[in-house]
Amino acid sequence: MAAHIRPVPLEKAYRLLNHGPTVLVSARHGGAEDVMAAAWACALDYDPPKLTVVLDSATRTRDLAQDAGVFVIQVPTAAQAVLTHAVGTRSLHDHPHKLRDAGVELFEMPEHDLPFVAGCSAWLACRLMPEPSIQNRYDLFVGEVVAAWADDRVFRDGRWMFESADPSLRSLHYVAGGHFYTIGEAIDVASE
Amino acid sequence: MAAHIRPVPLEKAYRLLNHGPTVLVSARHGGAEDVMAAAWACALDYDPPKLTVVLDSATRTRDLAQDAGVFVIQVPTAAQAVLTHAVGTRSLHDHPHKLRDAGVELFEMPEHDLPFVAGCSAWLACRLMPEPSIQNRYDLFVGEVVAAWADDRVFRDGRWMFESADPSLRSLHYVAGGHFYTIGEAIDVASE
Repeated sequence: MAAHIRPVPLEKAYRLLNHGPTVLVSARHGGAEDVMAAAWACALDYDPPKLTVVLDSATRTRDLAQDAGVFVIQVPTAAQAVLTHAVGTRSLHDHPHKLRDAGVELFEMPEHDLPFVAGCSAWLACRLMPEPSIQNRYDLFVGEVVAAWADDRVFRDGRWMFESADPSLRSLHYVAGGHFYTIGEAIDVASE
Repeated sequence: MAAHIRPVPLEKAYRLLNHGPTVLVSARHGGAEDVMAAAWACALDYDPPKLTVVLDSATRTRDLAQDAGVFVIQVPTAAQAVLTHAVGTRSLHDHPHKLRDAGVELFEMPEHDLPFVAGCSAWLACRLMPEPSIQNRYDLFVGEVVAAWADDRVFRDGRWMFESADPSLRSLHYVAGGHFYTIGEAIDVASE
């Protein structure tokens, strides 16, 4: 396992997505691998943790995730804005060298036959929960998170540390037309 | 219509949620009104615009939205962090004066019998699309956006202007335990 990557307890995994970052979706099947960007990913449940993600039918990543029944949702960093935009706008169907050209480096995690994108801040290994009705009507997929990890320079003890970590590790929040925001400053509201 | 509130064309409405803000959900039925916070809201489609939102069965807002068949998703600002946390942690079931105590001010929009929360940066009026299967299994609701508005001090010409607007208008991104982030700085990646 790469330096700085630490497991995240499953009951804290929702926190990796709770602040609404743009994510990368990756999947592998039959010797093929693809990675795409998705702004429309969202936590769905705490325990067991689940998430939703919209995967357009034109994407190869969707086919691979459906065929494999598993996929990865990962949180790219500010340093990966160009990579994120590149894998979000080019299709493997038209660009066979899409991943290489975008500078995507994949790595393995023990016990998971999945392609993980290096340089991200968090990774959620997901099992696809078949929901044919909403998949077909809305391109909406449900995943159960079966394992999670984060870079302990920016997420540790169950908390994001954006306010103290290097700004290059901040999450990306896409709007449109190549325009992203990074996550900003902390506001803490006292709980009763 | 209040000063600074301008309609957003429906084909641009997804941009109000694309960067993953925590939202407020409001609904009205039979003389009752409620507002709750939701971190688990997400765009689902462009045209017509649709969104998903997770509404726990314990919330009164969910009952009101289901009974009325319509609800509002709005984007609160950094200035509303305490309000957002308050309506996200207290239930109208236990706190009949929840809205008053949280400082929520509601206003009306012509042609929409819906409670809009004052001081937000964007508002999406939604029609509930009945999906009993995922509502019951996942507390997951689908809304079609039928009208949208934004505060033109922070969203205009189809774009968020967080980088030039007053910081008090930035969106909120909730993690857990009263810990929010505001949206941060812009990164623009040149499109090919």
